[in-house]
Amino acid sequence: MKACGVIVEYNPFHNGHAYHIEQSKKQSGAECMIAIMSGPFLQRGEPAIIDKWHRAEAALHSGADLVLELPYIFAVEHSDFFSQGSVQTLAEMGVNAICFGSESGSIEGFNSAYEHLQEHSGIYDEVLRKHLNEGLSFPEASRLGYEVIKLPSDSIDLTQPNNILGYSYVKQIRAYTNNVEPMTIKRQNNHYHEETITGKVASATSIRKQLLTDNEMTTDVKEAIPSITQEMLNTYREKIGIWHDWELYFPFLQFKVLTMTEEDLRQIHGVDEGLEHRLKRTIKEATSFQEFMSELKTKRYTWTRLQRTLVHILIGTSKEDAGRMLRQPAPPYARILGMTDHGKRYLRHQKKAMDIPLITQPQQLDHPMLDLEERAAAAYYAVTDPKMKVERMKREFGPPIQV
Amino acid sequence: MKACGVIVEYNPFHNGHAYHIEQSKKQSGAECMIAIMSGPFLQRGEPAIIDKWHRAEAALHSGADLVLELPYIFAVEHSDFFSQGSVQTLAEMGVNAICFGSESGSIEGFNSAYEHLQEHSGIYDEVLRKHLNEGLSFPEASRLGYEVIKLPSDSIDLTQPNNILGYSYVKQIRAYTNNVEPMTIKRQNNHYHEETITGKVASATSIRKQLLTDNEMTTDVKEAIPSITQEMLNTYREKIGIWHDWELYFPFLQFKVLTMTEEDLRQIHGVDEGLEHRLKRTIKEATSFQEFMSELKTKRYTWTRLQRTLVHILIGTSKEDAGRMLRQPAPPYARILGMTDHGKRYLRHQKKAMDIPLITQPQQLDHPMLDLEERAAAAYYAVTDPKMKVERMKREFGPPIQV
Repeated sequence: MKACGVIVEYNPFHNGHAYHIEQSKKQSGAECMIAIMSGPFLQRGEPAIIDKWHRAEAALHSGADLVLELPYIFAVEHSDFFSQGSVQTLAEMGVNAICFGSESGSIEGFNSAYEHLQEHSGIYDEVLRKHLNEGLSFPEASRLGYEVIKLPSDSIDLTQPNNILGYSYVKQIRAYTNNVEPMTIKRQNNHYHEETITGKVASATSIRKQLLTDNEMTTDVKEAIPSITQEMLNTYREKIGIWHDWELYFPFLQFKVLTMTEEDLRQIHGVDEGLEHRLKRTIKEATSFQEFMSELKTKRYTWTRLQRTLVHILIGTSKEDAGRMLRQPAPPYARILGMTDHGKRYLRHQKKAMDIPLITQPQQLDHPMLDLEERAAAAYYAVTDPKMKVERMKREFGPPIQV
Repeated sequence: MKACGVIVEYNPFHNGHAYHIEQSKKQSGAECMIAIMSGPFLQRGEPAIIDKWHRAEAALHSGADLVLELPYIFAVEHSDFFSQGSVQTLAEMGVNAICFGSESGSIEGFNSAYEHLQEHSGIYDEVLRKHLNEGLSFPEASRLGYEVIKLPSDSIDLTQPNNILGYSYVKQIRAYTNNVEPMTIKRQNNHYHEETITGKVASATSIRKQLLTDNEMTTDVKEAIPSITQEMLNTYREKIGIWHDWELYFPFLQFKVLTMTEEDLRQIHGVDEGLEHRLKRTIKEATSFQEFMSELKTKRYTWTRLQRTLVHILIGTSKEDAGRMLRQPAPPYARILGMTDHGKRYLRHQKKAMDIPLITQPQQLDHPMLDLEERAAAAYYAVTDPKMKVERMKREFGPPIQV
């Protein structure tokens, strides 16, 4: 059975995602669509608006046959590690293709960039390192690197943030997998960080923004998401009581930063170059997450990098653990969050061919990465009411969703 | 100028405390009354119902001339360390006497017990150690120790918890100070852990219980506290919004325990003998502090010992730091929380005679114990609203109260 993988956050699942999964299936000719999805916290260092179970359920009703959880340690990371974790897991799941959204919709530009960079990696790395040492942010330093090695005209533009993640997928697929074909689908809406809803295909950012600002399901939001997502968002808020937002976590973050020693903070993944002093000083005087971030932000740290570090503080991700886990040659397991009957059949066959354990519940395996997943879940649900916390932590150890 | 010290928590300051300070002054013939008071967290491992500033103010209006803060590391400790920190600081302050409340009101019984125990310390220590190793709690093991060495008939009964703290003061005074006289005043109400208010002189426990249960100032409470305490309690709740109670801290405690690794928990002062596993397992399923404590409690751990450990988790007090700080030969500083004009005059003279720095604001000295005090304050105010937190953390670095 031919399978195609997609790498997703579905925060929340919207019409653009539905189009992407449908077109990926068509273009790859796959019979089974496998989505690898971030769990409670996302790549930009933010809590997901509703939990992974409700996001997975929306996806399973909208074209995905299997939803796997991208482990937290890869999910809350820059594009290289994010791609490493997701591509490697999909390869273990036996996908024939991985299909991502892009502005151009043409894979050739990505391939051309990959080949050119392979050839000039020495110079690129040197320029990158030099600018990082000078205190530039990673996106800024890599942009200067690309300028020096002059990407060919048929290549995608790697100075555009929109292309970076897709490029990371292609690099990871071509460098580290066999028999997986990188594919891309032209995005219906290219401005995926756009802040205002612009019709039936809108950015997830704009949808979240409207949901969290208005605190209700407006007509604009309804237009931009399938009815299953409407249902999941509404059910979640009725049952669990909230839509998750960084602001809700601020009292917990502030408490944790102010009751850790600077030495403790320095052990946390991402707390480098004296950031611990700045964190303590700044958070003491802030009354909200937005206020805190505006004060914390400097030229050296991107907003995203800081947010990721703050998630690591919430969850207690140490440099030591992160380093060890990110350096693993392969993901230590693949965890199923949900499946359709069709996905279940695929699993039955694929299971035998896999080199890593396939788990449906975290208690099936004893691994430090699963302890980290449990801490991430505990931090995620910390903002819900006492009874709900207990109930959701039990759910964390429950079986996958079957639709 | 003759001075007398009292060791207090004033949680809150009540009629029994007013009587104690008045009688101590009379009996000692002192012209200056110096109270050393616990800060945000108390000996039994509980947050104070209102903050140290408001408790100090009540005391300064009720007979105390100076209020010092007992550093957190001594305040949230069993009687030996609690006495060590408070007696040593009072001795540095030049007191001629330290006067504590007791059931008997006679110092001879304490002196007799001290002398007997000095003589038989070898056997006592051996019996104590044996029973501790068998898994008995400290109070239980020491009770058996006292039974073996048979305290003389004129000695106080050391198997009574009410006498243990007074005995620790006498031991500390006689073993480690010169020119300080231990004195005791008969308590008006002996049942100081009594849970119901019993008239004009009631236990602090019963007063707190009624305040926190009814969430208002009842007639019974008003009867048992001076008007200045009424004023402080009311002002505090109007301004800061709450009366502090362990339940308010439960979400923060739960979040912290569930996002620390077991290895991290093991570094915390008081987390011994595998308690980290029990903590994690139990707190995950609890919806309130009371529920959590009932599940956590075992024969080996007293309620108080567990509560202290939970405070250390909130504040991030490591075994390493606690060990180093508790082993110091003398307190590294004395911190003034408040003074009357009379107390100010006493300070002016006494300052020159002191061997340790006298500070009125924490930023006057760079010492790890003051970092710990700041973390304790941050944890204490974590349950207040965002603006109030910022305001109270600023107050922490402000000048002492002057009345």
